[in-house]
Order: sequence, then structure tokens, then C-alpha cells
Amino acid sequence: MAIKQVIVVRTDLDMGKGKIAAQVGHACVMGAEHVRKSNPDWFSEWWEAQEKVVLKVANLKELEQIIRDAQEFGLPCSGISDAGHTQLPPGTVTCASIGPAPEEKIDKITGDLKLL
Amino acid sequence: MAIKQVIVVRTDLDMGKGKIAAQVGHACVMGAEHVRKSNPDWFSEWWEAQEKVVLKVANLKELEQIIRDAQEFGLPCSGISDAGHTQLPPGTVTCASIGPAPEEKIDKITGDLKLL
Repeated sequence: MAIKQVIVVRTDLDMGKGKIAAQVGHACVMGAEHVRKSNPDWFSEWWEAQEKVVLKVANLKELEQIIRDAQEFGLPCSGISDAGHTQLPPGTVTCASIGPAPEEKIDKITGDLKLL
Repeated sequence: MAIKQVIVVRTDLDMGKGKIAAQVGHACVMGAEHVRKSNPDWFSEWWEAQEKVVLKVANLKELEQIIRDAQEFGLPCSGISDAGHTQLPPGTVTCASIGPAPEEKIDKITGDLKLL
């Protein structure tokens, strides 16, 4: 069973590459810690290769739809809000982690999204 | 005591922003898990705000020097190698996590580096 983590990033926020990297880093850690506690089997399976895929959506509406789909589908999902110290207003939702979880489940939610 | 995590990224590899984000994501998770086990007090202190700073170096030589400095200084440090499935040759060292650890210690190693 292939276990992967997908991070979905908004492209409408005009974030620089360092900002994107930090937000995705938050998402990776939140998602990994969530699943380490909630589903240790998935976490262990994922840990060896730690497959991560970074995908994009056009705006908040699309990101919120992905988060709702993941939640309805019972997939672990962590939305990331920026603290707003630098480039963005406080509380701006920048990205979300889905998984680590079985690839075939995640692909049902994010299979149509393009790589960032 | 402010605890932060610094990720140092090579800029000479011509990585796209999604690739950089995934590599930084790896570094964030490896660094966080390392310190969760090796220094639970630092980890707990860091967890609330999860301060992350993404910095840059020009090439592998500079990254290796930072890693050596961090190790000599006794700071938790995780170098990240790419699996090489996509844009880079297998084993390419792309970035490193230093910390989470006290800010004043990390700044002695990375204080002169610029934001990515």
C-alpha cells in the first residue's frame, strides 16, 4: 500500500518561493504529526520514503472545496493559516496537507490537480 | 526562550518552487521528528508557534559548511538528499534543517544568511 502526503497550495496569494516553502513545511509537519498520532500504521508505512507531492489550486474557494472533500472522505487533513508577521494578513489560509494516507484514496480528491 | 527551525536551501540546483517546497517539507519533518525525540523540551516550546525560517546558500560547499558548523556547535541538523525521481540526480543534497533549537544558538551559525 503506497502512502503519500499531498500538499495543496493557493497560487493567488503572490507568495515568494521562500514563503511557499515555509507554508508547505508547516503543512508537512502538521500532517505528519496528526497521522503519527491518529494512524501509526499509515505513518510507519509512509516514513521510509516520505512521499510528498505539492499541488496547486487557483484560490481559497478551491482549497476549501478540497478540504471539505477530504474531510467527507475521512482523510486526515490540516489547513494552514499564516501568522501574518510578514507578507500576508493574519489568518490567511495558504495551503493544506492531505494525508499521509493511501494513494488511491487521496487521488480521488486531488487526482485532477496540477503540480505546483 | 525562543525556539526556531531554520531550513537552508541551495540556489544552484535550478529547482522549481514546487520542488523547493517539497524538499523544505522533508527538512521540516526530519528536523521536527529528530528534536521531538532528542530534546522534547525544545520541541514542546517550539510546537506552539512552530517558527520556521527559510534561508539560502549559493552551493553545496556552503551548505556543507553550515552543516559542519551546526554539528560542531552541537545543534540538531538534518541534511536532505533528493531521491532523484524527477528533476535531480539521485542523492543530490538539496537543503538542511537546523533545529528546532534556541534562536541565539542557531543565529551564530546562520545569522549571516539571507532569506530565500
